[in-house]
Amino acid sequence: MTETEDRFLERCRAIVGPAHVLVDPADTAPYLTDWRGRFTGRARAVVSPASTDQVAALVRLCAEWRVPVVPQGGRTGLVLGSVPDASGTALLLSLRRLNRVRAVDGFNRTMTVDAGCILSAVQDAAAEHGMLFPLSLAAEGSCTIGGNLATNAGGTGVLRYGNTRELCLGLEVVTASGEVWDGLRGLRKDNTGYDLRDLYIGAEGTLGIITGAVLKLFPQPKAAITALVALCSTDHALQLLKLVESHCGPTLTGYELMSDVCLRLVASHFPSLPRPFPGRYPQYALLELSSHESEAHGVALLEGAIERALESGLVQDAVVATSIAQSRALWAIREHIPLAQAAAGKNIKHDISLPLSRIAAFVAATDAALETHYPGVQVVCFGHLGDGNLHYNIAPPEGIAHEDFLREQAAINRIVHDNVAACGGSISAEHGVGALKRDELPRYKSAVELDLMRALKAALDPHGIMNPGKIL
Amino acid sequence: MTETEDRFLERCRAIVGPAHVLVDPADTAPYLTDWRGRFTGRARAVVSPASTDQVAALVRLCAEWRVPVVPQGGRTGLVLGSVPDASGTALLLSLRRLNRVRAVDGFNRTMTVDAGCILSAVQDAAAEHGMLFPLSLAAEGSCTIGGNLATNAGGTGVLRYGNTRELCLGLEVVTASGEVWDGLRGLRKDNTGYDLRDLYIGAEGTLGIITGAVLKLFPQPKAAITALVALCSTDHALQLLKLVESHCGPTLTGYELMSDVCLRLVASHFPSLPRPFPGRYPQYALLELSSHESEAHGVALLEGAIERALESGLVQDAVVATSIAQSRALWAIREHIPLAQAAAGKNIKHDISLPLSRIAAFVAATDAALETHYPGVQVVCFGHLGDGNLHYNIAPPEGIAHEDFLREQAAINRIVHDNVAACGGSISAEHGVGALKRDELPRYKSAVELDLMRALKAALDPHGIMNPGKIL
Repeated sequence: MTETEDRFLERCRAIVGPAHVLVDPADTAPYLTDWRGRFTGRARAVVSPASTDQVAALVRLCAEWRVPVVPQGGRTGLVLGSVPDASGTALLLSLRRLNRVRAVDGFNRTMTVDAGCILSAVQDAAAEHGMLFPLSLAAEGSCTIGGNLATNAGGTGVLRYGNTRELCLGLEVVTASGEVWDGLRGLRKDNTGYDLRDLYIGAEGTLGIITGAVLKLFPQPKAAITALVALCSTDHALQLLKLVESHCGPTLTGYELMSDVCLRLVASHFPSLPRPFPGRYPQYALLELSSHESEAHGVALLEGAIERALESGLVQDAVVATSIAQSRALWAIREHIPLAQAAAGKNIKHDISLPLSRIAAFVAATDAALETHYPGVQVVCFGHLGDGNLHYNIAPPEGIAHEDFLREQAAINRIVHDNVAACGGSISAEHGVGALKRDELPRYKSAVELDLMRALKAALDPHGIMNPGKIL
Repeated sequence: MTETEDRFLERCRAIVGPAHVLVDPADTAPYLTDWRGRFTGRARAVVSPASTDQVAALVRLCAEWRVPVVPQGGRTGLVLGSVPDASGTALLLSLRRLNRVRAVDGFNRTMTVDAGCILSAVQDAAAEHGMLFPLSLAAEGSCTIGGNLATNAGGTGVLRYGNTRELCLGLEVVTASGEVWDGLRGLRKDNTGYDLRDLYIGAEGTLGIITGAVLKLFPQPKAAITALVALCSTDHALQLLKLVESHCGPTLTGYELMSDVCLRLVASHFPSLPRPFPGRYPQYALLELSSHESEAHGVALLEGAIERALESGLVQDAVVATSIAQSRALWAIREHIPLAQAAAGKNIKHDISLPLSRIAAFVAATDAALETHYPGVQVVCFGHLGDGNLHYNIAPPEGIAHEDFLREQAAINRIVHDNVAACGGSISAEHGVGALKRDELPRYKSAVELDLMRALKAALDPHGIMNPGKIL
């Protein structure tokens, strides 16, 4: 270690205490590999501040020394956004020790939290106060709310409650110069200047570090009703969505799509999970209704909608869960799709969104194009259909090794992303850009948009030290 | 007119045609005075482009000549945001000729519109397609959707549907250098970089000019039910809000507060409007429920909530409208408050928001402070209580002329705004900053926040030509 390097680390230790500056590779390793195990970066050190002031002091130090800063929450991101590059120049700043629920204002239905709070802890704290924090996603037991904000996470409740962006009223941010912006407002309306909050949300730590947030809470519904329906096609799944939306209005809180390929994959890797239907169908939709009136109201409403859909031939078969256990079993099928995929071997993932009016055409065209180029290829398509968000994942044809198939990633991305662009969609619906999709952006964004983004980056992070190599 | 000036106007005429470049004071006058008649500015000329490309060409010209550009929609703003200053250097750019509904995607529930569309025309176009565009405010027959976006307008539907920000999925913007950013996406999820959309929304034309937008539409509810209830206090109004939210969930779409002072003012200036109750009460709340099931469902739900509130003593008396005419009559009382105020004479207006948990304390403290300094002063307080947004307007004590009282504006603003700040509120909830509240910002925003805003302004409008003197 050079003397200069030693002086830098000394300053870090002075800020957070020696126990919270890790340099030994055995200690830093757990922070340096991404969630899916696709990449391992290097860092000068891993530091764990315990307060906003410590974060600010560390960023000031990094600004002075021009040391890149990589903020990290639960390290559950899917686009290499929270791990450093291979250069070893960055300081990795783990926010996990900032994990206090600072305040709950029940009457205002808001909660002020540290960025390092685990999402499930935030959900639990809301529930303890008889309220709902509706952000919900697979990694909720590990991911942090700061990471959710930095990536504008989506999940299963977006249809009714919006993305993380819509669930946040105020932020506290450490800027690239190490100042603290206190924007922790608990207001539903505030038109006093530029929307800094939404600029930091979704910026993946490249403009500043989110250290705290004021979150919106909601009245807890009295009952949640789950149903699984069998369908002939994606198009029918979309038509059913419209029917249920019109019939049930905002009580519809979840609408997930799963193809037969997904269900078979789950059944083969998790045979103990129940099979919902005796027959097989091309597509399935998982619906969740939340009633503020009563369970009976919710059941009647959902059954009424499904009955209509059965009569008109839109739905082939349906089960409405009659107990919490049954509801959990239906959700378990959906939740086990990514796990079944992981068990089956590595595959090529796409997190895309489309206008609802273009989804059926996109799926038909892209399925066909892939089949032409890769006969026998398996499309594992599922996702948050209510938001137009599909996880359109591609597994190899039978007989081709998963590792070999990964070599086709760039070519397959091109087919999928070009079709997404042609249909007016997005190549990252809820996962962000990170380092993984950075080089895709110039292909699908206009020069005007990229220039605007670069101008913002230069304005708010003039030395380029905030999570470099991500997004731009 | 100088020769240089003449050449500039010649270039304008070449872009939009001579008929759309106004310089005669008789022609330009209607564009130069603000809605409330408080200020008349001057402009080099008033130009009316008919397309995004014409807007871009005009902005490029202004960038080249360093001529300030003031964009204007329906000129209904309340904070002097859309009229030029007194210097006469600015080009006023009226967006009113950009008034096409470009496309309606019924299946995606989105509508793409020109910025100059009148809000009520947007509402009507949605209704023609069997859908709802829920933005609704007093000026809806005159204001433009571009102005609504530029000021992030609020109104009466925010409780359920959010501010204009939440109703917009995509934007088209002419940047300060006269380029066109095509961000007209109709996606519920898109995490591919910085949130340019929300940066331009609410920026009041100081970073660029919004020329088009993709708006979110909603399923049309089957029935809207209106009720007016009489209450003992603001605190009871807040407790009732919580009770109704828990009982009715997202079917509650409107919750307005009006004091007895407001009702008496309306009754004295509009005696033909019906009086809802035989007795008088300190406060009233106007509730609107929207049911996607049926009118009977909505009525039963609202009556159930009100019955509980009557039993617990929270509500003193109540009327639930049993016809559309009766519902309109109840809304008419609320809508006539600003008209009655205008008829009574000029007053000192505040558009503030607060955490719901602080409203009762704010009102008590501020009412008392004003009474101490201005005995007999009249507080005309009403607004969107469900969003924590009050129009806290101050009229002179009896016997003092309205014009004389206006001299106290600065002192009264100080009392009100200091109390707002002490309660964690905002001095502009839904009207924006404009030129009117610009000098208030440095008092209530941190240096860090103002510096961030200035950095963004410098990055996106380096020559400072976009609506100068507004916000910053």
